[in-house]
Amino acid sequence: MSIPNSITHILKAAPIHFGPFTVTTQVFHLTPHTYALVNLKPILPGHVLISPRRVVPRVTDLTPTETSDLFLTVRRVARMIERVYGASSLNIAIQDGADAGQSVPHVHAHVIPRKRGDLDSRGGMDAVYEMLDGEEGDLRDAFPRDGEVEEGAGGSSRRRRFPRVDNEERKPRSLEEMEGEAWRLAREMEKELDD
Amino acid sequence: MSIPNSITHILKAAPIHFGPFTVTTQVFHLTPHTYALVNLKPILPGHVLISPRRVVPRVTDLTPTETSDLFLTVRRVARMIERVYGASSLNIAIQDGADAGQSVPHVHAHVIPRKRGDLDSRGGMDAVYEMLDGEEGDLRDAFPRDGEVEEGAGGSSRRRRFPRVDNEERKPRSLEEMEGEAWRLAREMEKELDD
Repeated sequence: MSIPNSITHILKAAPIHFGPFTVTTQVFHLTPHTYALVNLKPILPGHVLISPRRVVPRVTDLTPTETSDLFLTVRRVARMIERVYGASSLNIAIQDGADAGQSVPHVHAHVIPRKRGDLDSRGGMDAVYEMLDGEEGDLRDAFPRDGEVEEGAGGSSRRRRFPRVDNEERKPRSLEEMEGEAWRLAREMEKELDD
Repeated sequence: MSIPNSITHILKAAPIHFGPFTVTTQVFHLTPHTYALVNLKPILPGHVLISPRRVVPRVTDLTPTETSDLFLTVRRVARMIERVYGASSLNIAIQDGADAGQSVPHVHAHVIPRKRGDLDSRGGMDAVYEMLDGEEGDLRDAFPRDGEVEEGAGGSSRRRRFPRVDNEERKPRSLEEMEGEAWRLAREMEKELDD
């Protein structure tokens, strides 16, 4: 399977940073000011993140141009994710600052595809919010820091801010699995219209 | 106290709709495609909503122009709310569709100012998410429908989707209180730069 054109474009733009982390091979969409990346431990299949390319912690740090580009990208990625994952709704959430639960000090919008009853066995419709702030949503250990080898996501430094709604252990995905999903989503984004 | 210029502008644009509800006197900011309104039962002081003027249920229903205008407004309102309420962080959240917990089928971004320890007595930092989907966040009974007299927000039709984290009863605010806050926030928005 040949490399998608958009992935070639992303690799040429490397390195792409998410806070202190290098995430280039997890990125599936790139615009002048914004990128979208797959997750190490998605809360639900298709849970992705959209960030400005410039590493800034707060929404108010963005320029108007960056703000428009970020949310036009959220809208396009959301449309693709809903289609590809067969969803009927989406949660879109930004924890803007540490006191709102932000774990990596770099603006990121969570886009999480939802279906009727998808969390019935895990605490109900709104369990997604607990999970966003539970172990699964804590991104700080999710990506290798620059120059580090990936250690997996079970490190003792992991913080737990909210009781988990279930006891299932979600193992971090391999880099190969994330890159495979990034390629697949890159191809799907190429089908989306620019509007 | 004289009526703020921006409120005069809003009243001339009346009626402003939030789904099936008329909310003109709760609106404190208006742009070509977007408005911001105060809440009947804010989760925390300064919890406001930003919506497109066109009544559409989903983010993907917005045009690119509406999308940019909505989120540039979110950013400007967020900056004002953080300043006026002395916050250090913000939660920004959209329940995009019924299966993501949307109660009123009209796009709306919640902006909720946060401070360190603000929810310590009510379940901790992330209780905000439970509350967003608990009784307090259910907006369907929050505003009088067109042509109806306000009944308060304790109606039996109210749904509870998530266990509440506390037992305190939050009474709906009066229209007078909401209008007072709308005027105050309108004046504060007039101080914000356009960028």
